[in-house]
Amino acid sequence: MKEVIVEIVSVGTEILLGNIVNTNAQFLSERLADLGLSVFYQQVVGDNKERLKEAAGLALNRSDVVIFTGGLGPTDDDLTKETVAELAGKKLSLHEESKERIETYFKKKNVEITENNFKQAMIPEDSIVLKNDNGTAPGVIIPCGEKKAILLPGPPNELIPMFNESVVPYLKKLSGRVFYSQTVKICSVGESKAETIIKDLIDNQTNPTIATYAKTGEVHIRVTGSAETEEEAHRIVKPVVKEIKTRFGNNIYTTLADVTLEKAVVDLLEAGSLKVQTVESCTGGMVAARLINVPGASNVFKSGLVTYSNKAKRKLAGVKKATLNKYTAVSEQTAKEMAKGTDLGPKADVIVSVTGYAGPDEEDGTPVGLVYIACNVCGKMTVKEFNFTGNRAKIRESATVNALILMRECILEYLSEKTFG
Amino acid sequence: MKEVIVEIVSVGTEILLGNIVNTNAQFLSERLADLGLSVFYQQVVGDNKERLKEAAGLALNRSDVVIFTGGLGPTDDDLTKETVAELAGKKLSLHEESKERIETYFKKKNVEITENNFKQAMIPEDSIVLKNDNGTAPGVIIPCGEKKAILLPGPPNELIPMFNESVVPYLKKLSGRVFYSQTVKICSVGESKAETIIKDLIDNQTNPTIATYAKTGEVHIRVTGSAETEEEAHRIVKPVVKEIKTRFGNNIYTTLADVTLEKAVVDLLEAGSLKVQTVESCTGGMVAARLINVPGASNVFKSGLVTYSNKAKRKLAGVKKATLNKYTAVSEQTAKEMAKGTDLGPKADVIVSVTGYAGPDEEDGTPVGLVYIACNVCGKMTVKEFNFTGNRAKIRESATVNALILMRECILEYLSEKTFG
Repeated sequence: MKEVIVEIVSVGTEILLGNIVNTNAQFLSERLADLGLSVFYQQVVGDNKERLKEAAGLALNRSDVVIFTGGLGPTDDDLTKETVAELAGKKLSLHEESKERIETYFKKKNVEITENNFKQAMIPEDSIVLKNDNGTAPGVIIPCGEKKAILLPGPPNELIPMFNESVVPYLKKLSGRVFYSQTVKICSVGESKAETIIKDLIDNQTNPTIATYAKTGEVHIRVTGSAETEEEAHRIVKPVVKEIKTRFGNNIYTTLADVTLEKAVVDLLEAGSLKVQTVESCTGGMVAARLINVPGASNVFKSGLVTYSNKAKRKLAGVKKATLNKYTAVSEQTAKEMAKGTDLGPKADVIVSVTGYAGPDEEDGTPVGLVYIACNVCGKMTVKEFNFTGNRAKIRESATVNALILMRECILEYLSEKTFG
Repeated sequence: MKEVIVEIVSVGTEILLGNIVNTNAQFLSERLADLGLSVFYQQVVGDNKERLKEAAGLALNRSDVVIFTGGLGPTDDDLTKETVAELAGKKLSLHEESKERIETYFKKKNVEITENNFKQAMIPEDSIVLKNDNGTAPGVIIPCGEKKAILLPGPPNELIPMFNESVVPYLKKLSGRVFYSQTVKICSVGESKAETIIKDLIDNQTNPTIATYAKTGEVHIRVTGSAETEEEAHRIVKPVVKEIKTRFGNNIYTTLADVTLEKAVVDLLEAGSLKVQTVESCTGGMVAARLINVPGASNVFKSGLVTYSNKAKRKLAGVKKATLNKYTAVSEQTAKEMAKGTDLGPKADVIVSVTGYAGPDEEDGTPVGLVYIACNVCGKMTVKEFNFTGNRAKIRESATVNALILMRECILEYLSEKTFG
């Protein structure tokens, strides 16, 4: 297997001005890594013919495949196709099918077409045209001697589907190998501990490769195998994923790409026919918002309370005035009472509460980052103390994620007791 | 004034693998544009000596100042300082002050120091050391002939304060010019309309420059002036900001850099001594969470309800069963009743409600993206219908921002009636 080196050249003055974050480069890099292709360089260059030519020349010289993003628009500032075609020595001519697609697109949007839009239908000779279902700029693959230049539109909603649908199959054929990845998503274990648990696997990796990624409160382990056939790639990944599953057990919440932590919690609630209520202070609705992020959350989520003030904690969540006076709002006792449940809203089987101090300044001696999270599953109460670091936003995010994690742990315990107990 | 060309070289294999988004490059580009410095190229290169050397050599050849980010850690993989020093022909030696800072840092964290940490205190000769209050890697400015290499640590929480505190003053001196920016933040006006309103200003800009940035529901207009003195730069920006203020009037919510839309709403509530309650369905706590994002929100925010189910809308928000049956949950009538107020929680003067359908699939004929937002200010009810586009997350974000905007409009109206009516 020949190593294929890919380089990403992002074209656009708006990136150099810092007006936008270059998420395209990140998306492409991640997907290319999944495909087992090596990216040694990324470049960003503005809408300037001379500098674009320099960057393109450099990339086509040192890499096998160069993916360009942006600069395929209809204006005079959009130079990518013209510049790369010039470097490749290819003439442009009108591509009838692309012209028709552009006309149809404008008709559908009920917008008048202007002559400069047909600039986008001009295609370099010997190229492969990649159709664009979400905009007017077709993508194009231009052969440059032994090298390939792949030109994609800049807007992510056009680039992403075009890459997935047209470029991935092309690159797979090019590399002559099939790649298959599976990601094991873990919570309740820190990154360094997770790495220690699989250190021997990481140290001895060749095929499949194993990479860990830390997210707030989570660790993702991606296992990627390469082989000549899809089947063989699966066969290579399977035993390693199985071994990782054995080592992390219940701390794995999914091995499916499209399952998030909140989705895993919603699925567990559904599995147990449990309804959930949130009672939030410092997170102020963030736990509820995460759960409702899951399509179909309405099956398990009925209501939530944001009890930010002491009065709200008393009147809505039924926390006793004496508790607040004796232990303060940021205490184990208050968290527990917040999660006790009231008669006010729809009945819930699982109640999760969060109370803490997110800062920015220390208040009445309560240290910034001190957070209590309680979870009540059918009357069984668990409460945990946390000391988060970072700014206000980071502390609130950590609290939100850990509320989801605690819910998951408590519901799992409940379900296993119900089944085996 | 000599044009200073700056280039950004981000070092880190994790960027090339797509594990992280290169937000440092965006941050630096934006700040450099504010300083009136031109960025013609960004590069990303992995933790590989040979390729890093190539990228650094190219950058130092074509640009005046090269900012490197990352690769200043204590491990053998961290090569930036060693590689750039080699290119500049500068020897490294132990910098006592940096060594002591590292020792103090570890002592404070109560973590044992290992020998490789002192690699970070090795500084190239003739360099300027930039102290790091948030980590162990000092930054460093290395003279490379006529050019300057500025090396900054990769973690944003170390890079950002170091850039602001140490690099900005250095660059200002280098360019011999002073730059001053002010941003006018606008809501209730779309981007293309906003651009039309100031088209003449944009078309005729030289100094100050005027740039518009679209955010969900908001438009930011940044005015940047350059001059020989701070005072003169202010003087250049002032009349243009004044003219923009005249044109957008009440649609401007702030001209202060650190005021967000939610902060502007919280400030208005404070100004009117008004308490607020949120009652949310499809946004599920996101409006409450945004308001509570503002430090000190506890002065105005007492409680919020997440009434996702019809039962919760009835039992917690007091929406009539008949209303839900006749008009459905996603209707003007339901939004109004949700914002009517109940006796349950702490008393509120302003109640904002959001009910809508965020998808992904159409349900019972309710189109995805249809959202009603109601705002009740001391009994005066305003309700608006929206048809948002995009996926579930995007629709919920649009609804959240527009709830804040509607609150702002209604409270402003109330305050002006109270004052003048």
